[in-house]
Amino acid sequence: MAERFEIVEKALLTMLEEKKYAVLKDILVTMNPSDVAGLFDGLEEKQIPLLFRLLNKEQAAETFVEMEPDAQELLIRGFSDNELKEVLDELYVDDAADIVEEMPANVVKRILKHADPEMRSSINQILRYPEYSAGSIMTTEYVSLRLHMTVEEAILRIRRQGVDKETIYTCYVLDKDRTLLGLVTVKDLLLAEDDSTEIADIMVKNLIYVTTQTDQEEVARMFSKYNFLALPVVDGERRMVGIVTFDDAMDVLEEEATEDIELMSGMTPSEKPYLKSSPVDLFKNRIPWLMLMMVSATFTSLIITSFEDALAAQVALTAFIPMLMGTGGNSGSQASVTVIRSLSLGELKFRDIGMVLWKEIRTAVMCGIALAIVCFIKIWLVDRLLMGNTHITFLVDLVVCLALCVTVIAAKMVGCMLPMAAKAVKLDPAVMASPFISTIVDALSLLVYFLFAKMLLGV
Amino acid sequence: MAERFEIVEKALLTMLEEKKYAVLKDILVTMNPSDVAGLFDGLEEKQIPLLFRLLNKEQAAETFVEMEPDAQELLIRGFSDNELKEVLDELYVDDAADIVEEMPANVVKRILKHADPEMRSSINQILRYPEYSAGSIMTTEYVSLRLHMTVEEAILRIRRQGVDKETIYTCYVLDKDRTLLGLVTVKDLLLAEDDSTEIADIMVKNLIYVTTQTDQEEVARMFSKYNFLALPVVDGERRMVGIVTFDDAMDVLEEEATEDIELMSGMTPSEKPYLKSSPVDLFKNRIPWLMLMMVSATFTSLIITSFEDALAAQVALTAFIPMLMGTGGNSGSQASVTVIRSLSLGELKFRDIGMVLWKEIRTAVMCGIALAIVCFIKIWLVDRLLMGNTHITFLVDLVVCLALCVTVIAAKMVGCMLPMAAKAVKLDPAVMASPFISTIVDALSLLVYFLFAKMLLGV
Repeated sequence: MAERFEIVEKALLTMLEEKKYAVLKDILVTMNPSDVAGLFDGLEEKQIPLLFRLLNKEQAAETFVEMEPDAQELLIRGFSDNELKEVLDELYVDDAADIVEEMPANVVKRILKHADPEMRSSINQILRYPEYSAGSIMTTEYVSLRLHMTVEEAILRIRRQGVDKETIYTCYVLDKDRTLLGLVTVKDLLLAEDDSTEIADIMVKNLIYVTTQTDQEEVARMFSKYNFLALPVVDGERRMVGIVTFDDAMDVLEEEATEDIELMSGMTPSEKPYLKSSPVDLFKNRIPWLMLMMVSATFTSLIITSFEDALAAQVALTAFIPMLMGTGGNSGSQASVTVIRSLSLGELKFRDIGMVLWKEIRTAVMCGIALAIVCFIKIWLVDRLLMGNTHITFLVDLVVCLALCVTVIAAKMVGCMLPMAAKAVKLDPAVMASPFISTIVDALSLLVYFLFAKMLLGV
Repeated sequence: MAERFEIVEKALLTMLEEKKYAVLKDILVTMNPSDVAGLFDGLEEKQIPLLFRLLNKEQAAETFVEMEPDAQELLIRGFSDNELKEVLDELYVDDAADIVEEMPANVVKRILKHADPEMRSSINQILRYPEYSAGSIMTTEYVSLRLHMTVEEAILRIRRQGVDKETIYTCYVLDKDRTLLGLVTVKDLLLAEDDSTEIADIMVKNLIYVTTQTDQEEVARMFSKYNFLALPVVDGERRMVGIVTFDDAMDVLEEEATEDIELMSGMTPSEKPYLKSSPVDLFKNRIPWLMLMMVSATFTSLIITSFEDALAAQVALTAFIPMLMGTGGNSGSQASVTVIRSLSLGELKFRDIGMVLWKEIRTAVMCGIALAIVCFIKIWLVDRLLMGNTHITFLVDLVVCLALCVTVIAAKMVGCMLPMAAKAVKLDPAVMASPFISTIVDALSLLVYFLFAKMLLGV
């Protein structure tokens, strides 16, 4: 499917270059706006307005929403006032607000000037809510009903109002001061046996709602838990101010997963997709963590330096440092990443800390013992017998494997506790992932290693 | 919100223990099925059927779907034939199929025996599709319309059939042999100006659909791209067999993100949530990778052993091995994780490989130079002057920092190329993440380090 689409894409771009506008127009009209938006990515700057003007009014607006901010800005700058107004009129308020957020100030001014007063006030309202809050991703366009309407009146109202609303399938029942009383779905309305039933009798009263200040991640979690199409957003007095729709929730879930993954790998999360990030952007996201971890490796250098004599006396010990630190780091990051993901999916809470620790201790003991046994045999067979490294004595092998076992157990403890601790102090647990934990575990594993060496080898 | 809910939860469980069933019943009826299902997690085995029987018929079915498989199995085993039938009658087919997938064979047999013949055949059909395919997550209950129906007739049909369908908001237009011709939304129907308009005139003809064999991840990506409520699933002859709904797509997106994160951290993905995984489960998921990486560290041991003399001659060199390998590993995993996430979000394709490499080279050179400069100064100020380690000469410092710069650049190359290569040979790019790359980068960094040491220090 994806490959077939690339061929279509190329054919369309060729038509544009060959100025076969009439054919192109006929094809574009059958395409999905997301796919049309994709076409613009392959275009040169001057071709963008050309292709855009081939779209009909409604499709132009839907496509515009899906385009990249660069292309949007280019188009807005090139639009006549009339064209700009036409596109804005077709946009839903939350989409318009998203676009406004991405644009430079002078473009924003022009957008707000040409939006109709109602949309202008809605955009302004959404823009004032804190970033990543329910308020910032909601739309103010929804169908509202009154308590004493009949089913027939309600359907009539939807028919009259619905064309401009982002979703008509969930309607909200409000009283005169816009307090949220209940909700009715179009399914309920269509399947009601009697058209003269009052809304009050069929509406769902025990509502799940969020406030404008609710974090968008919590909002998205509620969608994935309850399978809603839309979720009402209320202010401090339970007065309805907007709705969040499932498609926005889906985007939030994706964004948050990406953000977690980036944090877990020691990168500052970026709003830009990879393809749009310049090497300088990537550098800025990556260098702070690399610097931090490079400098914090000073500890491991110091530990090694202070055991220099021991290493000189038992030259075989040095060879196993990377294996020890690597296995410790991997063990720790397995535990931390599992805990971080469960925390962000809401499966795990801070109060579960005792259970997590007990579970990880048992897992760690099993992993530690299994690794130590296999490692012992491997070192003896491969390093000692096969490679003939006579510096490796029975005791050296034992030191390595005891240190390995203890390191794995310690690493898993650290790995599961740090994200829980971060959660407790309201930090993002994702920062407590592999790179951070490796640094701690590296130092720990060296200390354990040299301790055993001192005890058993007397170095 | 979440905390308030925990208080309610406790109050309800107390009521159950105190046998205040009437009050409990009144409260349960106002609650969302997902929340009711959550209550069962805190119950003892014998309390589960007790609480379940307080639910009314429809709510019982909806709650049952949201419960954990253990509790479901317990209930099914305890149900009378009549109770089982009542719950099954209320289930949607895809939910029933999900439940059947989780149950042991004798329970499945009992479920299939009591499901009505239509549901039985649908469940069987869904169960035959390959795991993780669109067929396995679809439901066979959707509203179908005919080409020459009027809007009025269509609405009438929805009213008659809709009560048993998972979504009524998107209806599919089929011809006599069930070939998919187009779709019509309830919004289109309600907003149609004339009730006698034919469906053929308002339906969307240029459809996006998937086949039963399409991978569920691709299906989920289409939802997040196109914002659909439902997506039609067809067989090889474009005959309609079912629909996938947005809530299932959302679940798939979550699962796939979790799977990627687990693979990236060197764990076998698990179907069970963390809280339900025993230490033995966790051990099984984690130990294969730990073993693999522990054994593959043999390379680093061998490299160090073969340079034993060099290390003995320049004792200061050993102290920087962990820093060098750690920074290399982190640099590599930053690049690999970024590329892996972009690949799984569909932002990046294999054909972009040249662009990725060029972008990463430039980023890597910047990171490498910046790190080397800071590292040089840090070693001189901290390790040499502050700690007074006189083994660190200007040349030793230079060797460390040159090796660091080259390692970072090499690590980022390896980090971005391996996932692309995995994609090219249809492997999951996520396995090419940090643990795998660290192993390669560890060996690389040591080789580079000793090479520079040989050249500049003559060891």
